[in-house]
Amino acid sequence: MSQPHEYARENADQFRQQLHDLLRIPSVSTDPARAGAVQEAAEWLADNMRRAGIENVKVYPTSGHPIVYGDWLHAEGAPTVLIYGHYDVQPADKADGWIDDPFNPIERDGKIYARGASDDKGQMFIHVKAVESILKTVGKLPVNVKYCIEGEEEVGSPNLPKFLKEHQDLLKADVCVISDSGILSKNQPSIVYALRGILALEVEVRGPAIDLHSGMYGGAVHNPVQALAEIIAQLHDQDGHVTVPGFYDDVLELTPEERAELKKTDYSEEEWIKMSGAPRAWGEPEFTIRERIGARPTLEINGMAGGFYGDGIKTVLPARAIAKITCRLVANQDPQRIFEAIRNYVMRITPPSVVAEVRQLKGSGHPVQVDIDTPAMQAAVRAYEKGWGKAPVFMREGGSIPIVADFQQTLKVPVVLMGYGLNTDGAHGPNEHFVIDMFHKGIDTAIHFLYEVAN
Amino acid sequence: MSQPHEYARENADQFRQQLHDLLRIPSVSTDPARAGAVQEAAEWLADNMRRAGIENVKVYPTSGHPIVYGDWLHAEGAPTVLIYGHYDVQPADKADGWIDDPFNPIERDGKIYARGASDDKGQMFIHVKAVESILKTVGKLPVNVKYCIEGEEEVGSPNLPKFLKEHQDLLKADVCVISDSGILSKNQPSIVYALRGILALEVEVRGPAIDLHSGMYGGAVHNPVQALAEIIAQLHDQDGHVTVPGFYDDVLELTPEERAELKKTDYSEEEWIKMSGAPRAWGEPEFTIRERIGARPTLEINGMAGGFYGDGIKTVLPARAIAKITCRLVANQDPQRIFEAIRNYVMRITPPSVVAEVRQLKGSGHPVQVDIDTPAMQAAVRAYEKGWGKAPVFMREGGSIPIVADFQQTLKVPVVLMGYGLNTDGAHGPNEHFVIDMFHKGIDTAIHFLYEVAN
Repeated sequence: MSQPHEYARENADQFRQQLHDLLRIPSVSTDPARAGAVQEAAEWLADNMRRAGIENVKVYPTSGHPIVYGDWLHAEGAPTVLIYGHYDVQPADKADGWIDDPFNPIERDGKIYARGASDDKGQMFIHVKAVESILKTVGKLPVNVKYCIEGEEEVGSPNLPKFLKEHQDLLKADVCVISDSGILSKNQPSIVYALRGILALEVEVRGPAIDLHSGMYGGAVHNPVQALAEIIAQLHDQDGHVTVPGFYDDVLELTPEERAELKKTDYSEEEWIKMSGAPRAWGEPEFTIRERIGARPTLEINGMAGGFYGDGIKTVLPARAIAKITCRLVANQDPQRIFEAIRNYVMRITPPSVVAEVRQLKGSGHPVQVDIDTPAMQAAVRAYEKGWGKAPVFMREGGSIPIVADFQQTLKVPVVLMGYGLNTDGAHGPNEHFVIDMFHKGIDTAIHFLYEVAN
Repeated sequence: MSQPHEYARENADQFRQQLHDLLRIPSVSTDPARAGAVQEAAEWLADNMRRAGIENVKVYPTSGHPIVYGDWLHAEGAPTVLIYGHYDVQPADKADGWIDDPFNPIERDGKIYARGASDDKGQMFIHVKAVESILKTVGKLPVNVKYCIEGEEEVGSPNLPKFLKEHQDLLKADVCVISDSGILSKNQPSIVYALRGILALEVEVRGPAIDLHSGMYGGAVHNPVQALAEIIAQLHDQDGHVTVPGFYDDVLELTPEERAELKKTDYSEEEWIKMSGAPRAWGEPEFTIRERIGARPTLEINGMAGGFYGDGIKTVLPARAIAKITCRLVANQDPQRIFEAIRNYVMRITPPSVVAEVRQLKGSGHPVQVDIDTPAMQAAVRAYEKGWGKAPVFMREGGSIPIVADFQQTLKVPVVLMGYGLNTDGAHGPNEHFVIDMFHKGIDTAIHFLYEVAN
């Protein structure tokens, strides 16, 4: 065992206690009332990075939440690794089904429970502790490193593209590493080579001017909740295909080789039911579960509301209803084209008895597919082999990290996605957690990666 | 002008101030937190009735909200009139679109704005002030009167049927008068001879065990909000007919004579758009607007909710969704049979990728159709002629007063529905109001009625 790995093992408890401290800060970027906590998380991270030996640490303000930068640039002639992550988290409320306070981390059954434990505070923090483990023992890194850790990933990174454009020299690198995705299983490492993009929109349907008495008006006024349900019901066919004309036009079809590779990591119906808790798998029957979530675009109703939905009854004919929708996109779909296709279709199928409005929301991002043959990707393969004792498989991830496309396009830097999250971590849901073993193996692997990518 | 009518005119301002006091009490029967206010409204009413000269006033406790009783029984040999109304109101929140505090009555443009102004505090109070106007001038009534004013009409009168059964002697009467319905227009009085019944239920659809990450799972798990929308979309056809098998089986068809009479009070498309604020009228094309709301049953989505529907985006695949539904029923539909038809149909069309549950809610009531040839009904016709200077038309009302069926069946007493509310009053919606002129003409007409029904 190398010195850095020994250091990481000896300081395991302390590393986790530090992570707990970060998880305790409710840095919910979607909630304006939490702006102070988001700022606090940025400052905490900057301070921790400085104590790890990272230099030039700075909290860059943006017009939204800040970006934390830091670097160590004394490995002359060696490549530069840019590490991206995010310290902001999804909303979390105990009432949503959390057993514990989502912002009071608790370790139980080998897991750290807290909002952001897996997505992405825990995974991002791995790279700070890996560099600390090298600097505090060897005294110098085998490569140059730069950190770009943002606080707006969960709101679609509205300020990062501008930051990248304005700081191209500062962020110049040979490879970008991101740990904000999944690993196939605890014992089978994997490298994600494709991520879905995202498009967010909302559909509002309005009918009468105000909520009406359902007795006095019911039967002669089109109910907006019903009308919206009728619209939503026309967005998929019975087999789960999206029915919006043009939706699949630009989808890059899977090659037979890809389908064969993805088959290795497919889920059985039983596994899927166990993971999701749903009565059965669902979706396009001509694709496997892995393909449906990794290689196929979706149109998901994140929520819908209208009228009265509390306890008891209220006999209203509601004035309006709203649905929140996100699409997951795959290469080579363009978020803007897809938005227009959906808007045109919804407007076309809306009956004249109600008025519909389709609004795009902030937070869209292009899908990503990265080349698996680059030296950096092969360095990651070797790092996983050493960290896990097993070669990783290449897989596709259903989630979105819109910023990956920006890194590729703006900084012209190849991206390597080294994820340590499990599908069962509960990211974005209640009782989110990070498996403690993944956290420590992640640090080991990140240390190996810095040495492997130097060669 | 008779002495009672003079008294009513002289005391007009005072009567309205008293009504304001009653409207100020937020007696929302659906809200357990308001139970104290409901009790307070009952006590206030009892006190006001006593001061009006009504005797034996008593607030009867029930297992829910109390019933206020009172009588005046010194007209030997004359008929007995039982007056029913309710002092409880629908929920109201300023955030729902109220210009003013719904429980701080304001007079503006000849209207009293407050929750319950029209439904039913204002209409019910007419009968207290009519009797006061006679007793304080003539000193005695031409008929015997009994009051039965409940506090649970807006939650479906769960305790009134039992109260009627247990107090058949106390409530024995020759005719029952109810003012909790509409008048055709300010200048055209009308008597309602049919009321729709009601059935309340909710449909819950569950999918995954918890809210899932829409990226990690989307495309391979059936979204419960989408599934519920798909179910709701199958409850009506494109012409607005309810598609539940058996739904229309027991509907009493309109006679050609009824259709001719109802045509007199039909709405034009323009009137309907103005009244409802909807882009256009909707519903079964083979029926007129008046027939759709008065003579046809409906299945109304009062509300629906699932997942995230706040500002911004939250990329969840929700675990569950719920829809609240009320059906308005017409003679001779049975609420229980209709509930079973809906439940069976929903269970049948629910795909195996989600789980649906259909639950009946409290508050069902049978539809009512009353005979227009009774002496009491004809007395009401003469009272309106004197109060308005114009003969009333007979019409159907789309709303429900489930208790009317109980009065007819349990007390075997004919019911006369003398409504003073306008369709534009905003009952159950924001900015509910009562036209001041209707309040005072209502008192005049109620005085006439007591004399006319004595003959």
